[in-house]
Amino acid sequence: MNEEPEVAVLRLGHRPGRDERMTTHVGLTARALGADRVLLPDNASQSRETVADITERFGGPFTVELTGSPRSVVSDWPGSVVHLTMYGERIQDVEETIRSAHREHPILIVVGAEKVPFDIYEAADWNVGVTNQPHSEVAGLAVFLDRLFEGRELEREWVGADRRVIPKATGKRVEPTDQ
Amino acid sequence: MNEEPEVAVLRLGHRPGRDERMTTHVGLTARALGADRVLLPDNASQSRETVADITERFGGPFTVELTGSPRSVVSDWPGSVVHLTMYGERIQDVEETIRSAHREHPILIVVGAEKVPFDIYEAADWNVGVTNQPHSEVAGLAVFLDRLFEGRELEREWVGADRRVIPKATGKRVEPTDQ
Repeated sequence: MNEEPEVAVLRLGHRPGRDERMTTHVGLTARALGADRVLLPDNASQSRETVADITERFGGPFTVELTGSPRSVVSDWPGSVVHLTMYGERIQDVEETIRSAHREHPILIVVGAEKVPFDIYEAADWNVGVTNQPHSEVAGLAVFLDRLFEGRELEREWVGADRRVIPKATGKRVEPTDQ
Repeated sequence: MNEEPEVAVLRLGHRPGRDERMTTHVGLTARALGADRVLLPDNASQSRETVADITERFGGPFTVELTGSPRSVVSDWPGSVVHLTMYGERIQDVEETIRSAHREHPILIVVGAEKVPFDIYEAADWNVGVTNQPHSEVAGLAVFLDRLFEGRELEREWVGADRRVIPKATGKRVEPTDQ
């Protein structure tokens, strides 16, 4: 986001049909809450299209890609890797350290669907629990991004949008942009 | 949560099959992030069971209910009603006011599935956008709760659990409780 080191989100695992909406929501949440890029499994082309379509209409910069080798994305990552899991360290205990790391280099956030292989736990610099309770990878990602950026993501400008929503106390207001 | 006025989440709309996981994730996110209760549409009995099952295993207090009259839940609510929508006022502009309201009385958070009827926008004390971008009702709920409670939800104690997860830098550790 802006001039900061990149934040990318890697979605691990996707069962077509069953996971379509969750994977799409991971991608849209990554975009809306300040990540620069999301990498989806190569069988998630439908989710990729939805996220790309939203980016085209509501703006970017934001990139959505498919990858056939998520493990290489993790092992080749030129920065720190954060794996979100209910078994990990408490976010409130490690967030400040991760924010410091992000001032220096790119962060990859790994978000699992089904059971995550053990080597991902080992490859991650931090396994982080947004609570140690079972809930939702979308919820975990959202809270993590909001805390990583400390709310700056809510103020970001969108470029290349053909429309924008004007905040409104009641009702809906959408305006075309000049772009 | 604890001795504070109640926070309940109302899920509006549910298409069985298609919305099953999203509705379940709304329920689990409400529980994990400090709400006291979730109300689901009466055709979401499968989601209700999943949330009740997780509460039994991982603890509470947390209540999951079905309702056939979501509009009465809204109109009869003895406190403030917050409707989460991408068209609403920016969370960063209204959150402090809502936190003050919550010190005085119970808060109902309304989370839509499909298109939300206009009377809900009118009935709400606040229509709130967690960004004015399209993303995920689960993500919006998660960020809203984390900001409403200012992180206190991450420290809550769970009662009546038969197991608990011990935070761990690498791997998984789950222990039976004494209860």
